[in-house]
Amino acid sequence: MAVYTEVSDDDLAALEAAYDIGEIVACKGIAEGVENSNFLIETTRGPYILTLYEKRVDPADLPFFLGFMEHLAKAGCVACPVPIKGRDGQALRTIAGRPGAVITFLRGIWPRRITAEHCAELGAAMAKLHNAGLSFEGTRPNNLSVEGWRSLVGKISEDTAAKLDPTLPGLMRGELETLSAAWPKLRSSPDRPSGVIHADLFPDNVFFLDGKCSGLIDFYFACTDFLAYDVAICLNAWCFEPNGEFNSTKAKRMLSSYETVRPLSEAEKQHLPLFARGSALRFMLTRLYDWVNTPPGALVKPKDPREYLHKLNFHRQVKSIGEYGLV
Amino acid sequence: MAVYTEVSDDDLAALEAAYDIGEIVACKGIAEGVENSNFLIETTRGPYILTLYEKRVDPADLPFFLGFMEHLAKAGCVACPVPIKGRDGQALRTIAGRPGAVITFLRGIWPRRITAEHCAELGAAMAKLHNAGLSFEGTRPNNLSVEGWRSLVGKISEDTAAKLDPTLPGLMRGELETLSAAWPKLRSSPDRPSGVIHADLFPDNVFFLDGKCSGLIDFYFACTDFLAYDVAICLNAWCFEPNGEFNSTKAKRMLSSYETVRPLSEAEKQHLPLFARGSALRFMLTRLYDWVNTPPGALVKPKDPREYLHKLNFHRQVKSIGEYGLV
Repeated sequence: MAVYTEVSDDDLAALEAAYDIGEIVACKGIAEGVENSNFLIETTRGPYILTLYEKRVDPADLPFFLGFMEHLAKAGCVACPVPIKGRDGQALRTIAGRPGAVITFLRGIWPRRITAEHCAELGAAMAKLHNAGLSFEGTRPNNLSVEGWRSLVGKISEDTAAKLDPTLPGLMRGELETLSAAWPKLRSSPDRPSGVIHADLFPDNVFFLDGKCSGLIDFYFACTDFLAYDVAICLNAWCFEPNGEFNSTKAKRMLSSYETVRPLSEAEKQHLPLFARGSALRFMLTRLYDWVNTPPGALVKPKDPREYLHKLNFHRQVKSIGEYGLV
Repeated sequence: MAVYTEVSDDDLAALEAAYDIGEIVACKGIAEGVENSNFLIETTRGPYILTLYEKRVDPADLPFFLGFMEHLAKAGCVACPVPIKGRDGQALRTIAGRPGAVITFLRGIWPRRITAEHCAELGAAMAKLHNAGLSFEGTRPNNLSVEGWRSLVGKISEDTAAKLDPTLPGLMRGELETLSAAWPKLRSSPDRPSGVIHADLFPDNVFFLDGKCSGLIDFYFACTDFLAYDVAICLNAWCFEPNGEFNSTKAKRMLSSYETVRPLSEAEKQHLPLFARGSALRFMLTRLYDWVNTPPGALVKPKDPREYLHKLNFHRQVKSIGEYGLV
């Protein structure tokens, strides 16, 4: 839970003047999200979200993120929050001393207990996002792909990693070597298309109402990469049970629902085990880095990297895409 | 900022069934409040607040708190959140494994930079609360009055207190002795009336819209005590500048505005320095206790007790009520 910056009544008065959103009647910090500060603003016209971008977000990336949300909303096939333009025509401005934006309020609740039905809904929504992204002109490199992993491995002390799990140091080095050798160059081709991926479609970023996906939020890791890599991230984030078991029924529902919107090519399917392994390494490394570097008194408790160590080991032993429920 | 209990989508479905509040379309944990977990629930009928009572609140006290909010709202002279009764006629129920209640959403923003105008608005609102409380039948002892201070002093190590400020141990003991000898017995009389006091009317519990007080929140310290003691708490919470100086203009505005609704008797005025001193001791002691007992990784950062040490010392040297702007 995270609210790093305080918004004063004076800041709210300035905000009210800058936007045509009605009169602000309440503002509550939201105990969600890790990277940024979020506030729910109630106005005489209804609720809005105010996001203040904190130090882990590069302000130079904000036009890409906000532009993509706007593009996706315009495409109209999958709902997401839309940045509101102020009276000056700008969506991005300085609020309470930080870069900030007011975005529309997206209805929905993220699921705590994942069902196969949720996975099917997610699959279709992700495919719609990927299709809509193909007509978006902006690009942003994925700085948490192979070179990003290499940089993280270099920053994590092997002694500290070994204290968490003795296999970690060897595995980190070995996987980095294996995956960087096998990882394809990012070059879009009909059989392995690249485009804008969300790159962080965890359950808390996918909202549901009455069992249907009502929209996606939190586009602040979005970047240009293989579309199938986004699918692999979701295999990890949605298809493992709390006890660590992979649930191939959930994977099958997610993938087949994805394919009703955008069929995967044979090459994409064959790359899934590699991409799933890479995505597991990516989240293991970022969690490990946070685990080591988060001071004890921090607002946000770091997540256990061993969850992703376990997932990584699962994908390392996958022998055929049949194990993901694919034929 | 505090959300101690997680509310799942299943909990929300149960909540929706229990109340006639429309369809729940969103639920966000609020990063405000210290004692309880609060959630902003958006329904098709508008926003509501869900409060889950955490371990520092005695469940036996909840009917008093909720009953007083209902009483105050019915009296209609000062706005506050109202507990919503479920389809079963009950306001209080178990939600996500804890005692919980859904209350109405109160519009307004609490002021970060206090002006004399805010103090005047607060004074009138507090007096209306006091008047309305006189017809409320419930009572609840103030467990943070003299006996509560004695218990706190007994629990705080003098060595730890001395590390924060070397004068603290002697002052704690001395003030406890002086104040408990001088403190009047709680017995309502026309010249020193007792009744329900809010007992925690800090700026974050007083909402404003367009410069006017729009209502009061957070009644979970409300209790039966001298009405003038509530006034003394507010002298401490609203009338000192961030640099520690007492602002007699603010005090004068607060008190004269209070008196337009409920005039203070001569006896009440004469007791204000004693009550202000006792209230400063009360907040100094609870802050000191939290300062010592809050683990480094806690969600809520403890407030500095020295702010109230300073206020206590101010009231100790007050020679006449003229210093509070009274004549």
